[in-house]
Amino acid sequence: MEVTNKYIAIKAQVDGAPHESDFEVKTESICLVVKPGSKDIIIKNLYVSIDPYQLNRMKTISASQKSSEFAVGIAPGEVIDAYGVGKVIASDNPEFEKGDYVVGLISWGDYSISQGMILNKLEPMGFPLSYHVGILGLSGLTAYAGFFEICKPKKGEKVFVSTASGSVGNLVGQYAKQLGCYVVGCAGSPKKVKLLKEKLGFDEAFNYKEETDLNSTLQKYFPDGIDVYFDNVGGEMLEAAVSNMNLHGRVAVCGVISEYTNTEKRAAPDMLNVIYKRITMQGFLAGDYMRLFPEFLSTTIDHIRTGKMHVLEDLSIGLESVPSAFVGLYSGYNVGKKIVKVADE
Amino acid sequence: MEVTNKYIAIKAQVDGAPHESDFEVKTESICLVVKPGSKDIIIKNLYVSIDPYQLNRMKTISASQKSSEFAVGIAPGEVIDAYGVGKVIASDNPEFEKGDYVVGLISWGDYSISQGMILNKLEPMGFPLSYHVGILGLSGLTAYAGFFEICKPKKGEKVFVSTASGSVGNLVGQYAKQLGCYVVGCAGSPKKVKLLKEKLGFDEAFNYKEETDLNSTLQKYFPDGIDVYFDNVGGEMLEAAVSNMNLHGRVAVCGVISEYTNTEKRAAPDMLNVIYKRITMQGFLAGDYMRLFPEFLSTTIDHIRTGKMHVLEDLSIGLESVPSAFVGLYSGYNVGKKIVKVADE
Repeated sequence: MEVTNKYIAIKAQVDGAPHESDFEVKTESICLVVKPGSKDIIIKNLYVSIDPYQLNRMKTISASQKSSEFAVGIAPGEVIDAYGVGKVIASDNPEFEKGDYVVGLISWGDYSISQGMILNKLEPMGFPLSYHVGILGLSGLTAYAGFFEICKPKKGEKVFVSTASGSVGNLVGQYAKQLGCYVVGCAGSPKKVKLLKEKLGFDEAFNYKEETDLNSTLQKYFPDGIDVYFDNVGGEMLEAAVSNMNLHGRVAVCGVISEYTNTEKRAAPDMLNVIYKRITMQGFLAGDYMRLFPEFLSTTIDHIRTGKMHVLEDLSIGLESVPSAFVGLYSGYNVGKKIVKVADE
Repeated sequence: MEVTNKYIAIKAQVDGAPHESDFEVKTESICLVVKPGSKDIIIKNLYVSIDPYQLNRMKTISASQKSSEFAVGIAPGEVIDAYGVGKVIASDNPEFEKGDYVVGLISWGDYSISQGMILNKLEPMGFPLSYHVGILGLSGLTAYAGFFEICKPKKGEKVFVSTASGSVGNLVGQYAKQLGCYVVGCAGSPKKVKLLKEKLGFDEAFNYKEETDLNSTLQKYFPDGIDVYFDNVGGEMLEAAVSNMNLHGRVAVCGVISEYTNTEKRAAPDMLNVIYKRITMQGFLAGDYMRLFPEFLSTTIDHIRTGKMHVLEDLSIGLESVPSAFVGLYSGYNVGKKIVKVADE
């Protein structure tokens, strides 16, 4: 049974900020019947994740990309893999059956063909499927592992989160509040700032676009210094955070979005500060913390069910909206986890 | 009993690279008899340490200095405290007696008056007193704690050390060789490179002044990547090291000498690399690891006595040589631990 699979591809390597015109919708003919012995799984994609880091995979291959299995380059014209939720429509793989929901590595397309790598069966547990792309998926684990394992926070500590209304940042702030920390977030619009303070319970929040001296801004919001900085942006904000950290401060380096489109902005934190204040800056990837997934899931589900955590999703509809959704990440159009709904079940 | 105490002072705050003309020899009259109830200890200084970090204390006070008790500013005309070894000539302090050798915070002068803060009785254990300023003192502990506690090295790992013929770097490299690591050091002259390879047993060493592309240089010396970087310099070398690190690489941030005289050189390591490769960069101060002192001391003494470690000292004679010794640090004139012998016992 042949069908047409639509998918999103880049026309050429993307260096600098992405534009919708960098992308195209392509089609290919695929067979929805699996070959015996192939171990193939054919998945109808339902929800796909839109993540800033994908841009780095679209660039001209650099040494840093070559060195990491997490940054495999994306070639022009090719299917782009992405985290998401789908439904199995055919399987030659003993671990998956037709009708199973799956979560993991699928693609920005109507269908994905997988051999089960980085793919798991999904039990929705009564939650919308999209939750499993964001708060109960890799974004959630990134926030949970990054905050609890890398930042090693203690109750009462002062926590700063950048891109605090983003997919990961909003969750870090919410976990930090649950732990009893003082939490300040920064975001890029008055609406987001209001949301952080009024809906998500951040102690303070500010619009970084209205600030001219980030160092002074952080001094104002952290008169007693920062113990933990969850960094999603790099650049000047990282420099200002390091300047305002307390002794034995910890920086979880999760993202560098300010530098993705402009490496000229690269952060040059004061290493003398890093020494005197015994600061630890640690990069991490959620994939290293899969052992925490059960604990993360049960904790987070409990917080959602008891109303202690809020779900911040930003849904676009239809595969064709992937390019605008992706490009919008770099202008801060999304509030919370950016997801594209590709199809109804 | 009144005597004249000569000491070295700065004439004004020193911003940028230091010059001998920034310093002056001052004199004051002090009484060598302690007042009852004062808890004072009067010390005849014998050997004083010459350390690059002192320059930061001489600068116009910055936020980073204010935030740390380890970077108390040095005022023009005042006595400059420094690590060293001396002999007690009078004491009203029950913990110290006349004739005791002491090690710890004394000063760049003929005599120091202390109340016993950051000062310990010294048992020379048959070693020259100067050893207790360097290899068996704070430089040694810095190397030992920074390497073993911060870098958490394993046998066979690839270790890079900058300022590898300096007071701390040479010891880090020697500890790493003892552990069975592959060790490469960089230094600033052919003579130093030769010393590292031929005397200290480094696997490789290079003169960074002869290299035009540090990234390629490190690629050449570390075809399998760097697991541990012991950073004494910051700047471009730190950037190149991060670019060449392996997954889960560790950077011990011990010093930033390339930036002490020129903050324009501040390192902007690629944070995307830090994320993908899950790199940890951690600042530290030896003072936090005093609990390791007994272990450090017995291990190091054993290595010296069995000939497994070499002592690299660079001694100048006479208090008046302090300014030139200090200024020389920034031109790389010293080989190993720079010490000024102030007086015979």
